[in-house]
Amino acid sequence: MSAQTFTERREHFPYRMVIPTRWNDNDMLGHVNNVIYYSYFEAAVVRFVQEETKTDWATAAHIPYALETKCRFIRPVKFPQTLEVGMRIAKLGNSSVTYDMALFAEGTDEPAATSQWIHVWVDREEERPIPIPDAIRAAYQSFT
Amino acid sequence: MSAQTFTERREHFPYRMVIPTRWNDNDMLGHVNNVIYYSYFEAAVVRFVQEETKTDWATAAHIPYALETKCRFIRPVKFPQTLEVGMRIAKLGNSSVTYDMALFAEGTDEPAATSQWIHVWVDREEERPIPIPDAIRAAYQSFT
Amino acid sequence: MSAQTFTERREHFPYRMVIPTRWNDNDMLGHVNNVIYYSYFEAAVVRFVQEETKTDWATAAHIPYALETKCRFIRPVKFPQTLEVGMRIAKLGNSSVTYDMALFAEGTDEPAATSQWIHVWVDREEERPIPIPDAIRAAYQSFT
Amino acid sequence: MSAQTFTERREHFPYRMVIPTRWNDNDMLGHVNNVIYYSYFEAAVVRFVQEETKTDWATAAHIPYALETKCRFIRPVKFPQTLEVGMRIAKLGNSSVTYDMALFAEGTDEPAATSQWIHVWVDREEERPIPIPDAIRAAYQSFT
Repeated sequence: MSAQTFTERREHFPYRMVIPTRWNDNDMLGHVNNVIYYSYFEAAVVRFVQEETKTDWATAAHIPYALETKCRFIRPVKFPQTLEVGMRIAKLGNSSVTYDMALFAEGTDEPAATSQWIHVWVDREEERPIPIPDAIRAAYQSFT
Repeated sequence: MSAQTFTERREHFPYRMVIPTRWNDNDMLGHVNNVIYYSYFEAAVVRFVQEETKTDWATAAHIPYALETKCRFIRPVKFPQTLEVGMRIAKLGNSSVTYDMALFAEGTDEPAATSQWIHVWVDREEERPIPIPDAIRAAYQSFT
Repeated sequence: MSAQTFTERREHFPYRMVIPTRWNDNDMLGHVNNVIYYSYFEAAVVRFVQEETKTDWATAAHIPYALETKCRFIRPVKFPQTLEVGMRIAKLGNSSVTYDMALFAEGTDEPAATSQWIHVWVDREEERPIPIPDAIRAAYQSFT
Repeated sequence: MSAQTFTERREHFPYRMVIPTRWNDNDMLGHVNNVIYYSYFEAAVVRFVQEETKTDWATAAHIPYALETKCRFIRPVKFPQTLEVGMRIAKLGNSSVTYDMALFAEGTDEPAATSQWIHVWVDREEERPIPIPDAIRAAYQSFT
């Protein structure tokens, strides 16, 4: 596919999370199932929100909702590989934020997949968009 | 294995739930992954608790916690088969209840797997065992 | 979000698959987890390929690989709802095909989510793109 | 429950595997879903078989099939905890082997759950039990 023209490397992503694969991540074709890639990216996004923006998912008054996610599959990965998700903030709007991510297999610098996620911050009760609070905005800005 | 000596049939289980398989239920060996069997049984148990005992998982003051689950694998199933879980109440204690279940592939009367789950009813706040409330006990009794 | 401007309805998608939810499809926020939406869409795409293009995933010489998937989340769904995926073929290239999908909750005609998947047909051995075989192309054409 | 009487500790399990949790491991009750515990234990068993018995799941002439699995839930765990599975071989029969496992949360020595798995070694083609080959038996014996 167009893998050969993709030029980004591990070092371009300031936030990282190591993800060991699990046996049932693989599907019948012997590779990690495409759906499971999203759970790797989700683990990174959710931990980022929790640790860097100090948002407690269970109780916070403001939380982010996923508006859109996508993934481009470049080369297969499989159990028992250990993977790493790299992430940076690509765009920071009034209520929304776009995460740019890539998935790397151990020992390689070229992504096996790339993914973008758009979150909209909402008021938990009302479920309506809110301006991203300043402290949270600052956390995002350190990972652009 | 000892499949040939297992004598129970679909008709021995008064509570039923149809479960279509999903592609990523299959693992690298081309069969439904052993772990996924538990999500089929869980779907049946959870729906039973919700609909028959009228327990709202999100808000009820009393909910059941899983104490123990087990499964015996008799013959493989695979996507795109449609499956059915059969269930009956095997034992009803003061705080605990044992569910006897079996998984059937479409068009067959002999189980592909059997499973037992033990629930303990607890007070949601205290997380301590409580006597099973009368109305809930009655619901269980109609499926023994 | 922009849900109010999304104008497509269930009837616009000629291929359909009913998907009952499972308890552990829900996440901590009490809704179906965003990742799981992709397993619903995958179930529909995989069954379509298997039944309509007569491709046996385990043995066929030509199979489709996912190149890109994406999903827009419009309104939440949750266990124990029964869902339906609607699908149509949006674009048919030389080696690639784009599926347009939407997810509907029972009793509603407006999508809870929309999704696009791009498959590239490859030779199983070589893992290189091939022109989509005629019989398979015809199957896709009946669902445009 | 009877957690207070459970006396085994991390050090009693010679084989170990670290398992970071993922966000969608948690269910609506805010804890890791009971089904997911089995995927943690499976990751350990499968990696053990692959690395210690040198069995390639994709191609080996002899592979183990799960006959029975069970789990006792002692105390909840949740994302974002990092967990560890401990394992030892409890019983080694002619064709079958029983794995004794426990799941530990970071920083604690008392199991959050215990699990037993029974594998039967079969001939891949015939799907019939075989005597466990000597080299594989020796690998098991070093972890009793």
